[in-house]
Amino acid sequence: MMETITSMHNPRIRQLAELQQKSSERRDHGLFVVEGVREINHCTEAGYDLDTLFVCHEIFGDEKTSFNARQTIAVSAHVYDKIAYRGGTEGLIATVRTKTLRLSDLRLRENALIVVLERVEKPGNLGAILRSADAAGADAVIVCDPLTDLFNPNLIRSSLGGIFSVPCVACPSQECISFLKEHGIQILTAQLQDSLPYYDSDMRRATAIVMGTESTGLTDQWRKVADAHIRIPMLGRLDSLNVSVSTAILLYEAVRQRQ
Amino acid sequence: MMETITSMHNPRIRQLAELQQKSSERRDHGLFVVEGVREINHCTEAGYDLDTLFVCHEIFGDEKTSFNARQTIAVSAHVYDKIAYRGGTEGLIATVRTKTLRLSDLRLRENALIVVLERVEKPGNLGAILRSADAAGADAVIVCDPLTDLFNPNLIRSSLGGIFSVPCVACPSQECISFLKEHGIQILTAQLQDSLPYYDSDMRRATAIVMGTESTGLTDQWRKVADAHIRIPMLGRLDSLNVSVSTAILLYEAVRQRQ
Repeated sequence: MMETITSMHNPRIRQLAELQQKSSERRDHGLFVVEGVREINHCTEAGYDLDTLFVCHEIFGDEKTSFNARQTIAVSAHVYDKIAYRGGTEGLIATVRTKTLRLSDLRLRENALIVVLERVEKPGNLGAILRSADAAGADAVIVCDPLTDLFNPNLIRSSLGGIFSVPCVACPSQECISFLKEHGIQILTAQLQDSLPYYDSDMRRATAIVMGTESTGLTDQWRKVADAHIRIPMLGRLDSLNVSVSTAILLYEAVRQRQ
Repeated sequence: MMETITSMHNPRIRQLAELQQKSSERRDHGLFVVEGVREINHCTEAGYDLDTLFVCHEIFGDEKTSFNARQTIAVSAHVYDKIAYRGGTEGLIATVRTKTLRLSDLRLRENALIVVLERVEKPGNLGAILRSADAAGADAVIVCDPLTDLFNPNLIRSSLGGIFSVPCVACPSQECISFLKEHGIQILTAQLQDSLPYYDSDMRRATAIVMGTESTGLTDQWRKVADAHIRIPMLGRLDSLNVSVSTAILLYEAVRQRQ
């Protein structure tokens, strides 16, 4: 019988906490954290390697897990409660080897559908967008000049596994623009000024939908290279939609047009 | 010069905290809490009465606010920091008189667009839906058999003012069904089984879009009375979208069809 960790001062538990909290730790060790049976499943199915699997048998039960990890460590319910972000995650947390995709790794359909996010601020929004991008069958999400790393635990959680099913690349805006132009992918920038309603644009050909932040929108470098500027009509009193909601509306317009 | 409250033990500060935390307090006192200049603006523009305005002059500045409240109370930065949910809310928090709308209070356009939510669980989702409903120009949001009250602070915050601009009614499902039938409003239920893609439904006439929870979907009482069952095609590996994202996609399909 394996020993059960009962203290938060255990060095492995401390490393786990650091991976959850600091992007620099994730980068230096090439590891990130995934919580929950379903999410870890999505992760291994997508070809990620588990490093350490933390099991709380009081929650998970006594059977062996079906996952292959470099090492498996049992933790007490007290410790699990402290290291888990949410309840009901079935007693499993894993550290996982990061994989870094580049633009040149992307395999795109002829009429590719791509989401580009410039300087997205909130990991939760990026996660929500990955979830919608999966649902809409998007080929890739490209995050330009990101202010968060792609392995932030909030992002992983809110994507519900979308981070594993949709190829996601981080790169500078200029690199992304060159890539899209080279591949003949039209650039549709979401912006309120000088724009047509999104449903009047043609999204059947290879398309990149480019979104800025909710507060400041897109920078000029994107507006200038756009093939069309599109907007979601705002018919009420508020002046903006949540960026993950806007992105989903635009993605599903492409799905509708391509049906 | 008015006295400044510096202690969390002050009875007014304690009542504020109770209103933030407990729906029973909100119900018993007929008060709820709104934070931020912009949100309080939306709130008063919608005809709500401010009860107590808490001002932190170290953040808001020394000028008088433009709001009419029954009473205005100054609080120290230390107290404000504890009572504010988020930073950057400009030093203003108000308690506000609740208003309860009934179905009979709703004034609907001929081709009304209504969102119905059955047993929505998370206040944050309901708030996000109100924000999208405002943007799409919906006539009303009806919350059936709700598991949260409409004045939950998470809901208020995530609606960004949508709770004040979109009429919102809470009632039992059966009452809502009778109301929709009496007014000749077609009922479109979102469900994966026995359904057509949403863009193949006609949303130009008076329409209620009915959403269930992410986990269990709609109950049979709604499926049975539907004029059509609609689904958002899921083209990826995950099996659901966030309910606020789904609702926005369906609302904007109605906007597109009605352009």
